Amino acid sequence: MSTTLRKLEVASPVPADIDIANSVEPFHISDIARELGLGPSHYDLYGKHKAKVLLSVLDELQGSGDGYYVVVGGITPTPLGEGKSTTTVGLCQALGAFLDKKVITCVRQPSQGPTFGIKGGAAGGGYSQVIPMDEFNLHLTGDIHAITAANNLLAAAIDTRIFHESTQSDKALFNRLCPPNTEGKRRFSNVMLRRLKNIGISKDRPEDLTPEEVKKFARLDIDPSSITWRRVMDVNDRFLRKITVGQGSEEKGMTREAGFDISVASEIMAVLALTTSLADMRERLGKMVIGNSKAGDPVTADDLGVGGALTVLMKDAINPTLMQTLEGTPVLVHAGPFANIAHGNSSIVADKIALKLVGSGGFVVTEAGFGADIGTEKFFNIKCRYSGLTPQCAVIVATIRALKMHGGGPEVVAGKPLDPAYVTENVGLVEAGCVNLARHISNTKAYGVNVVVAVNMFSTDTEAELNAVKTAAMAAGAFDAVICTHHAHGGKGAVDLGIAVQKACESVTQPLNFLYPLDISIKEKIEAIARSYGAAGVEYSEQAEKQIELYSRQGFSGLPICMAKTQYSFSHNAAAKGAPSGFILPIRDVRASIGAGFIYPLVGTMSTMPGLPTRPCFYDIDLDTSTGRVVGLS
Amino acid sequence: MSTTLRKLEVASPVPADIDIANSVEPFHISDIARELGLGPSHYDLYGKHKAKVLLSVLDELQGSGDGYYVVVGGITPTPLGEGKSTTTVGLCQALGAFLDKKVITCVRQPSQGPTFGIKGGAAGGGYSQVIPMDEFNLHLTGDIHAITAANNLLAAAIDTRIFHESTQSDKALFNRLCPPNTEGKRRFSNVMLRRLKNIGISKDRPEDLTPEEVKKFARLDIDPSSITWRRVMDVNDRFLRKITVGQGSEEKGMTREAGFDISVASEIMAVLALTTSLADMRERLGKMVIGNSKAGDPVTADDLGVGGALTVLMKDAINPTLMQTLEGTPVLVHAGPFANIAHGNSSIVADKIALKLVGSGGFVVTEAGFGADIGTEKFFNIKCRYSGLTPQCAVIVATIRALKMHGGGPEVVAGKPLDPAYVTENVGLVEAGCVNLARHISNTKAYGVNVVVAVNMFSTDTEAELNAVKTAAMAAGAFDAVICTHHAHGGKGAVDLGIAVQKACESVTQPLNFLYPLDISIKEKIEAIARSYGAAGVEYSEQAEKQIELYSRQGFSGLPICMAKTQYSFSHNAAAKGAPSGFILPIRDVRASIGAGFIYPLVGTMSTMPGLPTRPCFYDIDLDTSTGRVVGLS
Repeated sequence: MSTTLRKLEVASPVPADIDIANSVEPFHISDIARELGLGPSHYDLYGKHKAKVLLSVLDELQGSGDGYYVVVGGITPTPLGEGKSTTTVGLCQALGAFLDKKVITCVRQPSQGPTFGIKGGAAGGGYSQVIPMDEFNLHLTGDIHAITAANNLLAAAIDTRIFHESTQSDKALFNRLCPPNTEGKRRFSNVMLRRLKNIGISKDRPEDLTPEEVKKFARLDIDPSSITWRRVMDVNDRFLRKITVGQGSEEKGMTREAGFDISVASEIMAVLALTTSLADMRERLGKMVIGNSKAGDPVTADDLGVGGALTVLMKDAINPTLMQTLEGTPVLVHAGPFANIAHGNSSIVADKIALKLVGSGGFVVTEAGFGADIGTEKFFNIKCRYSGLTPQCAVIVATIRALKMHGGGPEVVAGKPLDPAYVTENVGLVEAGCVNLARHISNTKAYGVNVVVAVNMFSTDTEAELNAVKTAAMAAGAFDAVICTHHAHGGKGAVDLGIAVQKACESVTQPLNFLYPLDISIKEKIEAIARSYGAAGVEYSEQAEKQIELYSRQGFSGLPICMAKTQYSFSHNAAAKGAPSGFILPIRDVRASIGAGFIYPLVGTMSTMPGLPTRPCFYDIDLDTSTGRVVGLS
Repeated sequence: MSTTLRKLEVASPVPADIDIANSVEPFHISDIARELGLGPSHYDLYGKHKAKVLLSVLDELQGSGDGYYVVVGGITPTPLGEGKSTTTVGLCQALGAFLDKKVITCVRQPSQGPTFGIKGGAAGGGYSQVIPMDEFNLHLTGDIHAITAANNLLAAAIDTRIFHESTQSDKALFNRLCPPNTEGKRRFSNVMLRRLKNIGISKDRPEDLTPEEVKKFARLDIDPSSITWRRVMDVNDRFLRKITVGQGSEEKGMTREAGFDISVASEIMAVLALTTSLADMRERLGKMVIGNSKAGDPVTADDLGVGGALTVLMKDAINPTLMQTLEGTPVLVHAGPFANIAHGNSSIVADKIALKLVGSGGFVVTEAGFGADIGTEKFFNIKCRYSGLTPQCAVIVATIRALKMHGGGPEVVAGKPLDPAYVTENVGLVEAGCVNLARHISNTKAYGVNVVVAVNMFSTDTEAELNAVKTAAMAAGAFDAVICTHHAHGGKGAVDLGIAVQKACESVTQPLNFLYPLDISIKEKIEAIARSYGAAGVEYSEQAEKQIELYSRQGFSGLPICMAKTQYSFSHNAAAKGAPSGFILPIRDVRASIGAGFIYPLVGTMSTMPGLPTRPCFYDIDLDTSTGRVVGLS
């Protein structure tokens, strides 16, 4: 039995998240690490309650067995969220603190921007939380700051390179790139050798290049209109969505329309989430494509000479951060890519380390963003494809509230009072809404895992409503369907879910089965995913056709597909609840994250930079300077 | 005798900085902390070689004595730098590893931007360095990232507030700022009570405000043309110097000309460097002025509701970072404000903690940026004024190279070979150049400290040249003048300097004497500083006059003055070497950092966002993915 488990005294009604989080004194993180078999050489402490687990742990445990691998997805949510993170944490508290299993929760690091905007923090809720809550939501161990720094160094390199190329001859450019040393000798740096290889010049002495090769090497000739690399900031700053840069007089009129995304939308975040080692990260960062040359060839970070520097900036970020739940079970927080323009899952390295640390018979529970149509689909077809890992069980979180919405209930709007339909019994609405759950179950089951439905129970839910969900879930092929009260009761409220998940893992029989193979065309892959949404077909804009043609010509058609679609419907229309079918899915544009390793078709417009409301959360946030404690975080 | 001292084996010629830095295995930082009497409750580890020393240490040691306090400045430098950081580190290695003194080095955290641009790292050099060099230069413990986040949250709050005010009535604005809760009750958050106090409304219930008061409270009415708050990024991105924001269609045409500085130019960096406690930092961050209302009243961070959130973002950054020198003596790295638009000194809290930790008879050596006319002047008149600390000794670093330049030698240009005048004996040039040294000595001595001149010796310097400096320094009133070879020999090369500094500290007799009192006018203060430069008078632009009038009217005339002047001459003209006099100092503009606590007149144009050259340092920087080691940092 672990020495770091904490017995919770639960209060009713459930207090505010921050009050619950502050009501317990976290264990020193080295105690949590010790329970996992980790000694001081295996991690770097970041204060008393966070530690970065070093990647070298993976090498050390190479020969040992993996635990069971469980992914948590959800039905199509309401704008209020259905408690997927809370369920992920609660399930782990149950497995670790009540069922005596070795367990690690793997979750995404939240963006700091929304913490000060509308949304507040993201560490679970009620009696199922990751603590300390303020450290989880702010800075953490600096990974997102490292991404911001790396992303923007690359951005600065792009504009500055265009600027310098515009004012220098091929020869002058080459002389500056490969200056003679004190003995008059020139040399290529390693990253220049990568570029030479990319452009097919197999020479390694600068003096051997012909004038033509000098030009080809030194002049990237970036087409400014093709640049897809944007700057980032981990702040909700809507006024940076579209800007003009280069208006200073020293920039000599080389203005350009550009923009900022929030940092977690950076391709580098997706790279962090999908990489498997330092060497792999170096390759991925170097081959990120920022745009094209005027001749239509992709221009990479390594072409700009900056792939190595980006890796240096990211070298600590690759190590996942160990934290703990309210009940003292271990958590690995790592990476938080968008779930639309990226794949919305926490990192491969965190899951891999976790699987080794819990070992055979243990459990790793990892969360996939958005509904299962998006997060779980990408978990399997992108994340598992790159990791080579095989999950045994997928949990699908549902609420009576969301099912009623899918059954035809009134619109649910954040910040407005709920319609009475959602807080009084209406079995008919629930039954009708189960079409949404059923499609998520059958889609997920097709990957070869056992599906357990977790109904995140609210106090207004009735037994008849809950039974209706169970019945529908089993009819749709679920392995089990369980009612959970972890928000109100912590791990104790998810013990039945824990038992069901354990049985599901132990009794899985099928192999992992992807939705599509990689070696078909981009369009065929898009169409396979669209069919899983219920679409009858796909419609491509002219721009989308052009991009598909470009990426195919550039040799990128073998990548998996990452659909940028609303999470509020199976279809592209957020208002189409339930299980719509027969629609034509429109593809507005197609983009690519070559370093991360996927093509992302845009189904509609995705906002990649949130704004602040008239009264942002920050009005309530302050430091109690006498105790050093954060107040007002929600 | 300390157990964490390391004997250096020095090689000749001196190897590259990174090779020296990598040739020793740093002690675990908890060993360095233990030598200072610090236990695990006194610090937070950040990996194995960095720890944040908690501010609470100051409370604990309140009753104990302070060590000697030594500031290191320099003569007017060449563009190559004269080794001030190296001397600071070397002096401490001498005091700690050879003279058996308790000693702490206090240095600034370098910006990450230039590490990838032209300059390379900034951890000292040769056998006098702070290690590990890569951790010192990159991310450190996240303080600059916290500043970036806080600075940009405030920036986002400004533009968004203008936007929301433009589209809402007073009443709607007020209703959104103070929304009714579920019982229909409204309340002011704490930061709103601060604003109410600022604008002279002494009511604390929203419903008691008259319509006029509602308008006054809810509408900041910021004049967009008055906004001085810029966004920041810790990257050399010249294309962000001048930009237009708000060009997205959702921003409804509310475009504005704006710009980015490098993060260390943020006022928040100056606040961090000048604050004395969490409570003081909360006040300073809240009263930072971002611009004026259309009526000409200052608008603060607290008026925008964000002072508390900024403090929360900065709560860990206030703790200085403990590192070590090559010889195992302790270093506190903390804050790195610009030395022109800000005061260019490391933090007050680091110096205060250090003085208590070394205790009576120990030494704290802190570095002041730029030449002594700027860095040391601001050290005394701004930093010591806010800290209440009294230094005993000021070191002035000189090189034969710089003195020759001041004596009339040819121009020294970074990146170009040195003129032979600088590497062959020329006593006449040195003697002539000592006018520069002499003025720095007499200016510095006037503060009431003993002045020790440290000649940072190069291998080409001759005995006659070195003797000329000694003679001139003593004639100008120096306490002592010492030749040092710490770059080549580590602490051993600065033992004589250490002995001289010790004697200087022990024999100081005068009280601390500021250059100007605070209760004279802004112009009188500017003129006092100008006289110390050798100016015969001061000339104000129309804009400068306007700003002085504004700040005086707003009640800010009691603040100290922080001159934004070139470091390359006593005057405003970088080409005027030696000790120019009789010139009229032109003040182009006057700005203010109200939260940090100073007014800064602009003498010429200061670049606050560096650029990248055609071949930035990053071409050489990479990660050896087999060892995890950084290569190519210089």
